[in-house]
Amino acid sequence: MAEFATWIAVDWGTSNLRAWGMSADGAVISSANSDKGMGKLAPAEFPAVLTEVAAELSPAPGTVDVLICGMAGARQGWLEAPYLDAPADLRDLAAHAVRPAMENAALSVAILPGICQRQGGEDVMRGEETQLLGLASLAPDYAGLVCMPGTHSKWARLDGTRIENFTTAMTGEMFDLLKTHSVLRHSLTGPLDGPDRAEGFRAGAADGLDRPDNLLGRLFGVRAAALLSDRQPDWSAGYLSGLLIGTEIAAKRKQIGAASVPLIGSPALCALYWQVLDMSGASGHPVDATEIVLAGLKAARQHLA
Amino acid sequence: MAEFATWIAVDWGTSNLRAWGMSADGAVISSANSDKGMGKLAPAEFPAVLTEVAAELSPAPGTVDVLICGMAGARQGWLEAPYLDAPADLRDLAAHAVRPAMENAALSVAILPGICQRQGGEDVMRGEETQLLGLASLAPDYAGLVCMPGTHSKWARLDGTRIENFTTAMTGEMFDLLKTHSVLRHSLTGPLDGPDRAEGFRAGAADGLDRPDNLLGRLFGVRAAALLSDRQPDWSAGYLSGLLIGTEIAAKRKQIGAASVPLIGSPALCALYWQVLDMSGASGHPVDATEIVLAGLKAARQHLA
Repeated sequence: MAEFATWIAVDWGTSNLRAWGMSADGAVISSANSDKGMGKLAPAEFPAVLTEVAAELSPAPGTVDVLICGMAGARQGWLEAPYLDAPADLRDLAAHAVRPAMENAALSVAILPGICQRQGGEDVMRGEETQLLGLASLAPDYAGLVCMPGTHSKWARLDGTRIENFTTAMTGEMFDLLKTHSVLRHSLTGPLDGPDRAEGFRAGAADGLDRPDNLLGRLFGVRAAALLSDRQPDWSAGYLSGLLIGTEIAAKRKQIGAASVPLIGSPALCALYWQVLDMSGASGHPVDATEIVLAGLKAARQHLA
Repeated sequence: MAEFATWIAVDWGTSNLRAWGMSADGAVISSANSDKGMGKLAPAEFPAVLTEVAAELSPAPGTVDVLICGMAGARQGWLEAPYLDAPADLRDLAAHAVRPAMENAALSVAILPGICQRQGGEDVMRGEETQLLGLASLAPDYAGLVCMPGTHSKWARLDGTRIENFTTAMTGEMFDLLKTHSVLRHSLTGPLDGPDRAEGFRAGAADGLDRPDNLLGRLFGVRAAALLSDRQPDWSAGYLSGLLIGTEIAAKRKQIGAASVPLIGSPALCALYWQVLDMSGASGHPVDATEIVLAGLKAARQHLA
């Protein structure tokens, strides 16, 4: 007999959403993806998209709870879930969830809030806080920095379920901007994944770690190296990526300390951060991002009113 | 009786060109501008554009010399003038000028080379080297850094007519990229020159000077400040501009020392750099960019074969 999902876990980001049908004991029994991210939807369109996705997940008869994290709770999303202020206990996320109206009585929806920081560098996150709660529930004794590489990398200081502070580094977006729109695009057009990418990456990471204050003064070197040393696009892409990640990690070097930094993100990107942490004399270890977000949604559900 | 131009000085950049009709004793007797910059022209189109511009400058009968600096000598320009290697004596620029063919026998054309740096950070310049020669000819005893703010700011170490080394900082381009294409554009849409721009600029410059290694981690603060503190586009534009210029200047702080840094560029931009140099405990003084480029072309002409 096929099992029914007694509740549904959703990570609803800007570009797409991922949903899982969950059993009562917290096992994943079904999953679905959609490219209907927050950025593509008006508020009134969210219920129909959710109903459509939920239908794929073998929901149990009657009413099924849906717990959502991510950009669906942004001001431009479905229904704003106002930020919780850091420092905060991540177990409090559930108590600040908002409940959008649904005509479809079969779904009872809650959207978790993001977290903001008003002192010591204004900053915001939406989605990552649930991953951090997941990490805290899988590794309850962990205290230290957590790195979440991506378009906007997040670095958070965690102490159990408490988030002390965090920073966003626009590293991934900066790479895309420079590759697509800047004068460096002339050196970054062509096959970017060639054999020299790894060497370029190491050279860029070394330069970033060495002089993180000099990022603005190093970027143009990508263009100069193509003109003067005939560097090819694969080397240039590696160099730029390494320079940006090296700069990002050097800025955190003092705070990282001796513990191994948990890395939550795509495996390919986490491997690059791991490599640069290693070059900097620190260490890191990748954590499965899907496992983490599910653990976070499960933990939040336990504290839901 | 109207005076004739005995030679023509040209600054031919990527976006436009400026030309001056010069008397034998080095006075400007006429000037002309065109938006036919190097970036818009195929090599074969340069002679006709120059002939057209020269006709506006009251050229003397017979053959008139034309001396050109800037991107016209790039590989993608009219005729490549291969880079001189730094360290170099700027008086040697003239000896490395190239002479493109002209069907119009009334113009005898020479294009000055740019300068490249192969050791200690690969870098290139085209056009700024002539301005530096101009500075050296107006202030022959100056030894120290020179700052040329712009889309790609150049910082050069000069000792008389000798250029020791230089760096390009992509500060101006970075501001445009972030304003136009990044997530920060949401906070930078609207009137950018409002009353809060100056306050935002000071706050950004202070942050950049304080932690130049943390640029990637501060940029997103522009977005967060709009979300959390309702900062308006004028404040945000000022903050971003200040953060970038503060970061750029902090990276040079040790090299700047106690002397006042000559600033060559647009008056508005030079005033911002001057302000941040002042905040950093250093000092600067703007130098007229047109006067400087003319002085450079005049000095180069003295060494022309």
